[in-house]
Amino acid sequence: MSIRVAIIGPTGYTGLWLIRLLQGHPEVELTYLASHREQLPNIAEEFPVLVGRCDMDCRPIDPRAIAREADLVFVCLPHRAAMNHVPALLDAGLRVVDLSADYRLADKVLYEQVYETTHTDPRNLTRAVYGLPELVDRRRIAEADLVANPGCYPTGAILGLAPLMQRSLIHPEEVVVHAASGITGAGRAVKPHLHFPEQNENYGPYAVGAHRHQPEIDQALGWVRGQPTGVLFVPHLLPIDQGILETIYCRPSDDQVTEEDLYEGYAQAYAEEPFVRVRRTLPNVKQVRDTNFCDVAVRLVQGRVVVIAAIDNMVKGASGQAIQNMNIMFSLDETMGLW
Amino acid sequence: MSIRVAIIGPTGYTGLWLIRLLQGHPEVELTYLASHREQLPNIAEEFPVLVGRCDMDCRPIDPRAIAREADLVFVCLPHRAAMNHVPALLDAGLRVVDLSADYRLADKVLYEQVYETTHTDPRNLTRAVYGLPELVDRRRIAEADLVANPGCYPTGAILGLAPLMQRSLIHPEEVVVHAASGITGAGRAVKPHLHFPEQNENYGPYAVGAHRHQPEIDQALGWVRGQPTGVLFVPHLLPIDQGILETIYCRPSDDQVTEEDLYEGYAQAYAEEPFVRVRRTLPNVKQVRDTNFCDVAVRLVQGRVVVIAAIDNMVKGASGQAIQNMNIMFSLDETMGLW
Amino acid sequence: MSIRVAIIGPTGYTGLWLIRLLQGHPEVELTYLASHREQLPNIAEEFPVLVGRCDMDCRPIDPRAIAREADLVFVCLPHRAAMNHVPALLDAGLRVVDLSADYRLADKVLYEQVYETTHTDPRNLTRAVYGLPELVDRRRIAEADLVANPGCYPTGAILGLAPLMQRSLIHPEEVVVHAASGITGAGRAVKPHLHFPEQNENYGPYAVGAHRHQPEIDQALGWVRGQPTGVLFVPHLLPIDQGILETIYCRPSDDQVTEEDLYEGYAQAYAEEPFVRVRRTLPNVKQVRDTNFCDVAVRLVQGRVVVIAAIDNMVKGASGQAIQNMNIMFSLDETMGLW
Amino acid sequence: MSIRVAIIGPTGYTGLWLIRLLQGHPEVELTYLASHREQLPNIAEEFPVLVGRCDMDCRPIDPRAIAREADLVFVCLPHRAAMNHVPALLDAGLRVVDLSADYRLADKVLYEQVYETTHTDPRNLTRAVYGLPELVDRRRIAEADLVANPGCYPTGAILGLAPLMQRSLIHPEEVVVHAASGITGAGRAVKPHLHFPEQNENYGPYAVGAHRHQPEIDQALGWVRGQPTGVLFVPHLLPIDQGILETIYCRPSDDQVTEEDLYEGYAQAYAEEPFVRVRRTLPNVKQVRDTNFCDVAVRLVQGRVVVIAAIDNMVKGASGQAIQNMNIMFSLDETMGLW
Repeated sequence: MSIRVAIIGPTGYTGLWLIRLLQGHPEVELTYLASHREQLPNIAEEFPVLVGRCDMDCRPIDPRAIAREADLVFVCLPHRAAMNHVPALLDAGLRVVDLSADYRLADKVLYEQVYETTHTDPRNLTRAVYGLPELVDRRRIAEADLVANPGCYPTGAILGLAPLMQRSLIHPEEVVVHAASGITGAGRAVKPHLHFPEQNENYGPYAVGAHRHQPEIDQALGWVRGQPTGVLFVPHLLPIDQGILETIYCRPSDDQVTEEDLYEGYAQAYAEEPFVRVRRTLPNVKQVRDTNFCDVAVRLVQGRVVVIAAIDNMVKGASGQAIQNMNIMFSLDETMGLW
Repeated sequence: MSIRVAIIGPTGYTGLWLIRLLQGHPEVELTYLASHREQLPNIAEEFPVLVGRCDMDCRPIDPRAIAREADLVFVCLPHRAAMNHVPALLDAGLRVVDLSADYRLADKVLYEQVYETTHTDPRNLTRAVYGLPELVDRRRIAEADLVANPGCYPTGAILGLAPLMQRSLIHPEEVVVHAASGITGAGRAVKPHLHFPEQNENYGPYAVGAHRHQPEIDQALGWVRGQPTGVLFVPHLLPIDQGILETIYCRPSDDQVTEEDLYEGYAQAYAEEPFVRVRRTLPNVKQVRDTNFCDVAVRLVQGRVVVIAAIDNMVKGASGQAIQNMNIMFSLDETMGLW
Repeated sequence: MSIRVAIIGPTGYTGLWLIRLLQGHPEVELTYLASHREQLPNIAEEFPVLVGRCDMDCRPIDPRAIAREADLVFVCLPHRAAMNHVPALLDAGLRVVDLSADYRLADKVLYEQVYETTHTDPRNLTRAVYGLPELVDRRRIAEADLVANPGCYPTGAILGLAPLMQRSLIHPEEVVVHAASGITGAGRAVKPHLHFPEQNENYGPYAVGAHRHQPEIDQALGWVRGQPTGVLFVPHLLPIDQGILETIYCRPSDDQVTEEDLYEGYAQAYAEEPFVRVRRTLPNVKQVRDTNFCDVAVRLVQGRVVVIAAIDNMVKGASGQAIQNMNIMFSLDETMGLW
Repeated sequence: MSIRVAIIGPTGYTGLWLIRLLQGHPEVELTYLASHREQLPNIAEEFPVLVGRCDMDCRPIDPRAIAREADLVFVCLPHRAAMNHVPALLDAGLRVVDLSADYRLADKVLYEQVYETTHTDPRNLTRAVYGLPELVDRRRIAEADLVANPGCYPTGAILGLAPLMQRSLIHPEEVVVHAASGITGAGRAVKPHLHFPEQNENYGPYAVGAHRHQPEIDQALGWVRGQPTGVLFVPHLLPIDQGILETIYCRPSDDQVTEEDLYEGYAQAYAEEPFVRVRRTLPNVKQVRDTNFCDVAVRLVQGRVVVIAAIDNMVKGASGQAIQNMNIMFSLDETMGLW
């Protein structure tokens, strides 16, 4: 069986990574690239790395035409734009993995506050399944028409914190997530502060306490705990292409807990997970580069719990996780095409 | 008046930076370079960037010979090696700024525990002045024969935390210092994990809760508070040459405190400091690159205090601060040669 | 059919890349990792990126044991070491792809002069097939027991020059190959000049007119021309992980030649080649990163021919090309596992 | 004596570097920053690295107002814009160092062809002195009202080639200049191909045979030879902030010439030059970083002459050289403020 796949908005970095990864997937045929640009680009002219491997021309975003040629569509549009297209895609019979933020926050009011816009598709907002397979019931993903692919920072933060919260090993209200990301995480749109000489040899914080991924992290951890929670999330930019590393500082709920107890909590939580590696040694971003792994390690120092979680923001943090979701939706081996 | 200056151990990065900075200093004459190597190097062959500017040959470490030609000596030897030479240098009548860790920890027992060696010069250990001019009484530096130049991480962490601790604005026992440093901070000695392809495009933690700079931070903050303190210090390596940025997470002691109160605390504390810039916008390492500044900003988010402190590890974190100390010791304008 | 594959010397960068690429190869089973280290490493401890994907322990270099478990062996030992093992591997019935330089130069005297050592396996030296599939008769590779995998610089230079020489479009004796390589090309062995702060933000030439890859380039171009040739080869180091770009300067043999003529020469020469992309736009190293492509473009400016050839030194320049050779040796689709 | 200095267009990288370097210059007072922006910026808000060192507000470009407060003005406007302001600045009595390209090409027709615009100030075009002090008669610079500061690539290429051409050591018509530059050389204006993830880990050619610096190189070498000349100039972008290295390939005019002869040619040519270092070892960009040096080395390999010339494009290639010119114009020590 071969899944026929379309991508809407393939000219961003997540689109490029979907194409690269899908080319190594034995059960996928990429049939349709759809762009909202007026001048429809050839994808290999847009990304010369694809010359000779994927020379497809982009076509208009026509849900019915897409549905004739595809079973599943990855939506790689910016937030706000995605929800303008998703209803028609679903109506045309397509299954959708949306890589934007538009269906990640189940609470419409919260979404509108965080993204400063009206949510125009509330009906599907409640139907969307949050596609973090290690966190949600995989059967829900398997049956979903619409999967909201998680944000990059939330993926690492949630996988790093969920075992501790599930096991009530930490004070849930005193968590600090110090996050650092490579610059593809900021997207392909040109901005003055992302001009090469501004970021090269640089490192620093941004959006302190005001990043849109924070409510997404809080929502998922609220599910885990069964009640609202709130972490302090502080993102930083790293002068590298790919990679997120989150250093998470917590207070243990029990003074008697040992580092080995904490390690065991992770080991148990992720015993069956193909893409989470519970590490004894300290992770870094290079050890997960170009992979769909999330590396996690935990330390107990000076009465504090320190968790390190590392992912590749383009793979487990975006396009790789989207394919992981697709594999689940189509009952394939979850790791297919991902290593 | 011109100060005659010697450098012992000029073949490391701190030595190189001393030479570069001193060449722009209008009141300094560099007279003696002393190396412990058997093959005494020419410094311009060691560092070709110096060709034509400083082509001096290194000479042996001979305290009396040095004392004949110099008023002050910068000791750039590794810890453990420095204390083997400092007594003779002092005895020869030289004033000493030691850039190693050997005289930073006033407590001999603590030093021996942290550096896993016997301290062979306890007499001078108690006489050394910790050369963080913004923290200590400058008159003590001015009169000192032996200044212990602070570590790079401690410089940023202490300058970032002192105003909050002095004013009791935070709970002193719940401080997390998340630190990240460029790779010159690890020195010039070749190591497998510092091989270019291992660190390029990389970022990750090391020595979690076990870095030797932590006791130094704790000692200085203890002076500020008037009682022992202990922070959680977690260093990370950045794929850049120079720069340290520390993101410091604290809990305010007073729920009613405002971000403006915190800002004012810093503004007052550093009102007279030429090298601390209290910033409204967020600092980063590039904005302090090649300068002796420490940039500090503070945010109050979700009931937490977040402090950002940035320095250049080679300048304010090492050689620049050493020159700042020299300027004070010789009653020169503190900023001379530093901008 | 599944090929059983062994790797000798998997703890260098070419070994790592072989493992990574082979894991995506549908017809390969990696059965044996052999190391010459006394302490036999676990490969995932050596390269944590492999944790959970390839946790094999290395075993001793025992040709008979390897032959029991493998059909083909990739030799990733340093030059000089490789030829000490290859005869026994062949005798044990294994087919060998040698990634070292030991079997690349057909002329024993030349090898000994360039590599400053006696060649201890002259018998197999003459039997080895130079594994540049775009240059040699693929049937020779298909039938070979021993394939000498080309050097990284030679791969780009030869592919960039062969069409011009075959068609006598340039003066063969006036060729300048300006080459620049990422630092994985220098291997994993730690060296002072490859310490991160020495190469980061750096760029410069080395081994001007004295690099060991030059005779290899000359040998291959001599085959193409039918007579000895000699280019001027000048390598430079780039502060990046992977990638080689060679800018090749030539004089056209015919004043009337047009840029389109030159382009057509390349287009024809590589019309059937899956891994050479003749480009109209200018190549760069990022467009071939992590791929087995060689991108080539040609310009005619001011009466000079300028050729640009770009490869990823770890893929087309080493491990990818080794797999391409393996595919040919085992009658698989040449591109299998490579995109 | 103190020179009062103004900068027009200080919000680009050359402006920033002028300010940084001038702050270390003992005989300069920076009195006026003039911007053509409608919203006149504060320079420290524009470049936070300057906070506390240079917090000046920009003022409008008003030649008379500038002339009241300054003796010399550095013009850091883009080409085409510069020549719109220079006449009025000269008329107001200011001496001008123009860092744009507008007065570099003495031939109006050539300028208009290369820069695709009408030259609106032909009168001053012929009066401008090309400010490459190592090449031109310094007395001309000393007396000049208007100095055209050389381009970055030409500075390295001309200094690398002039001794060979002056001594007729090479065939002047067969010169290839392979150039590579850090990305500040492309300016501060944001462009898609200079977005961090596009250039990081990248390297490749651009404007092959079509770069505007080529005619400038040819003009200067024509002065040296006494007749028109033409080199092949091929620029490349390096993933670093600062630095230009040019590898220059030539054919010796005399088969009997030795490498030592060539070296001597350079050594003699630059014996009195404070900013040219004729090197025995191979230069690289890091050895000239942040300095006003041009490092030059020469090799004779396989009958070819290979010259390597390295500069920092922001210093000797722009702002440092502008200050060198200023020093000459005001009869100061030429190296003042530059090391």
